[in-house]
Amino acid sequence: MTNLKTDAAYELFEGLIRGSRPHLSRAISYVENGAPGAAELLSHAYKARKGAMLTGVTGSPGVGKSTLVDGIVSELRKAGHTVGVIAVDPSSPFTGGAILGDRVRMRQGHSLDQGVFFRSLATRGHLGGLSRHTGDVVALLDAFGFDHIVIETVGAGQSEVDIMRYAHTVVVALAPGLGDDMQAIKAGILEIGDVFCVNKADLPGAERTRRDIEMMLAMREPGGWTPPVVSSVAVAGKGLEGLVGEVLRHQTYLVSSGLLRERNRGSSTAVLEEYLHLLTVGKVMESASRDGSLDAALDDLVEGKSGPMEMAERLLRRYRE
Amino acid sequence: MTNLKTDAAYELFEGLIRGSRPHLSRAISYVENGAPGAAELLSHAYKARKGAMLTGVTGSPGVGKSTLVDGIVSELRKAGHTVGVIAVDPSSPFTGGAILGDRVRMRQGHSLDQGVFFRSLATRGHLGGLSRHTGDVVALLDAFGFDHIVIETVGAGQSEVDIMRYAHTVVVALAPGLGDDMQAIKAGILEIGDVFCVNKADLPGAERTRRDIEMMLAMREPGGWTPPVVSSVAVAGKGLEGLVGEVLRHQTYLVSSGLLRERNRGSSTAVLEEYLHLLTVGKVMESASRDGSLDAALDDLVEGKSGPMEMAERLLRRYRE
Repeated sequence: MTNLKTDAAYELFEGLIRGSRPHLSRAISYVENGAPGAAELLSHAYKARKGAMLTGVTGSPGVGKSTLVDGIVSELRKAGHTVGVIAVDPSSPFTGGAILGDRVRMRQGHSLDQGVFFRSLATRGHLGGLSRHTGDVVALLDAFGFDHIVIETVGAGQSEVDIMRYAHTVVVALAPGLGDDMQAIKAGILEIGDVFCVNKADLPGAERTRRDIEMMLAMREPGGWTPPVVSSVAVAGKGLEGLVGEVLRHQTYLVSSGLLRERNRGSSTAVLEEYLHLLTVGKVMESASRDGSLDAALDDLVEGKSGPMEMAERLLRRYRE
Repeated sequence: MTNLKTDAAYELFEGLIRGSRPHLSRAISYVENGAPGAAELLSHAYKARKGAMLTGVTGSPGVGKSTLVDGIVSELRKAGHTVGVIAVDPSSPFTGGAILGDRVRMRQGHSLDQGVFFRSLATRGHLGGLSRHTGDVVALLDAFGFDHIVIETVGAGQSEVDIMRYAHTVVVALAPGLGDDMQAIKAGILEIGDVFCVNKADLPGAERTRRDIEMMLAMREPGGWTPPVVSSVAVAGKGLEGLVGEVLRHQTYLVSSGLLRERNRGSSTAVLEEYLHLLTVGKVMESASRDGSLDAALDDLVEGKSGPMEMAERLLRRYRE
C-alpha cells in the first residue's frame, strides 16, 4: 500500500483495514468532501472489499422504515453478524440536520455496540437517485469488514431502482392505510422486491395489504426466487426474526444459484458508469463552465438557436481539442 | 426544414408544427423508441419551442395526484389555455400496462377535448429519475404549441428533484393521514415546492398537515417567492380554482422577476447533461460491451483486481484510441 501518495489517505486506509472506527468515520467524510486523496483511498478500498452481504430497505414515507431497519440490525447482531448501516437522506437545506434528530435518537439502542456502525448520507445536490457516494461508502464499509451492510432509502421513485443496483437483497416495506395500495404498485415497487414486509401489521387493513401484494406477485413469471411476504410490528419487535430469516434465506439462494455474481456485476456496472460520468460529463461541464462556453451554450438553448444534441457535440469537441 | 434527411422525421415534424395530434402522438413514440430520425426531429423541435409554461405536480402515492392533475387541467381549460399532460409512470414489467387502467379512465373527462393531450411515459430501464425522454417530450409538446404543459410524477425521492429541473412551477401535493408528516419533510419535499396543496382536505387532520407545512415554510430564508399552501378536495372539484390561481400567480412572478430565464437555463442544463451522457458514457459502455472489454472489466471489478476509477479511465482511453 506504499503507493498511497497522500499521507492522510494512507493513514485512513491503513486504520480502516485495521478495524478502527474513527478512521472509518473520517474516511467516509473524506470521500464525501472529495478530499484530494479520496480517489486513491477508494481505489484501495474497492480492491480490499471482503464481500459483505448488502441489504437495501425501501418504502414510502410513513411505513416505519427506520424502526424496521433498527429491528433488522438487532436480529443480525443476535445472529452474531456485524452490521454497517447507510441511511440515505434527501435532507432539506433550510431545515438542516435538525430533522434527523429522531433518527439519531432511534439509533441510540445500538450506539454502544461496536458491532454496529451507522451513517447518514445526504443526496442533496446529487443527481441519480442515491447519493453519488453510496457505492463508495459501501466499499469503505466492506473493506472495514462488516458482515452485513444495510442501505435504507426513502421514497417511491427512482431511488428504489438505484438501490436495487447496489443491494443483494431488496426489502420493500409497506404499511396498511397508506392510501391507495395500487398507487404503490404503480410506482414499480413490486418488481424490485426480493422480500416484502407489511409493517404496522397490527393496524386495520394489514391483511388486505398483504393479500394485494401476494395477488400481484402471483402474476409474475414463475421460476427462480418467489418473494415472500412477511408481517411485522417493528415498534413492538414483532416479526423481525421472520423478516431477517427471509433476507438470509434469499442471500443463501443468491449464493447457491450463482446469482450473487450477477448482482455483483450489476452493482459494478452502476459504479463504473458513475465514474465514467465524472470523467466525461463532469469534466466537460466543468471546463465549459470555466471558459464561459457553458453560459453561451445555455443562452443559445434557451433562445432556441441550437438544439441540445448539436450543443452537446460542440462542447464535447471543444473539450477534446 | 429541408435538412430533415429522414422522410418520416420530416413528415412528423411538419405535422406536429401544423398542429396535427396524430403526428404529435407518433412523434413521441418515434422519440421513445429511438427511431433513426429521432435526433433530427428533436433538434428541430427544440428550436421550434414556443415557450409553454411548465407545471410539475408531485407527491407521495395516495395523495390523489391523478385527480388533482385532472382538476388542474379543467381549470386551465376554463381559462382558455390548451394543455399537454405527461404522466411519468414507473410501471412494472410484469403487471404491464393494465395497472394504468384507472388512470386512463380518469382522463376520459378530457378525451373529447382537442385542447388537451395526455401521454404516459414509462421510466422503466432508465436511470436518473424521470424518463430519459421527459425533456424531449416536453420539447415536442412545446413545439406543437400547448400553452401549458403539466408533468405528473410519483414518488418522494429523486424524481422530485429531477422534475424541479424541468418545471417552472412545482406543485407539491400532500394529504392528511399519510403517516408521519415529518417523513415527507425529511424527503426534502418542502424545498422544491413553489405551491403546496393539501388535497383530501375533508379528511381529519387536514388542518394540522397545513399548519405543519406553514410552520416549516416559515423557517425558510425570507425574500423572493413565499410558497402558498392551498387546500383542495379534488374528487369534489373543490379548491382547484384557488390552486390554479396560485400556479398562474407564480408564473407571473417568474416572468416579472426575471427568474423565468434562470429556470429555463436550469432545464437546458439538465437536458444538455443528458445528451452529453449519451454521447460519452453511453458510447463508451456500448463500445466496451461490443468488444468484450466490459465483461472483462466487470470480472476484474467484482474480483477486486481493479478499482472503478482506474477501470473507467482504462475504458475511456481504449474508446478514444
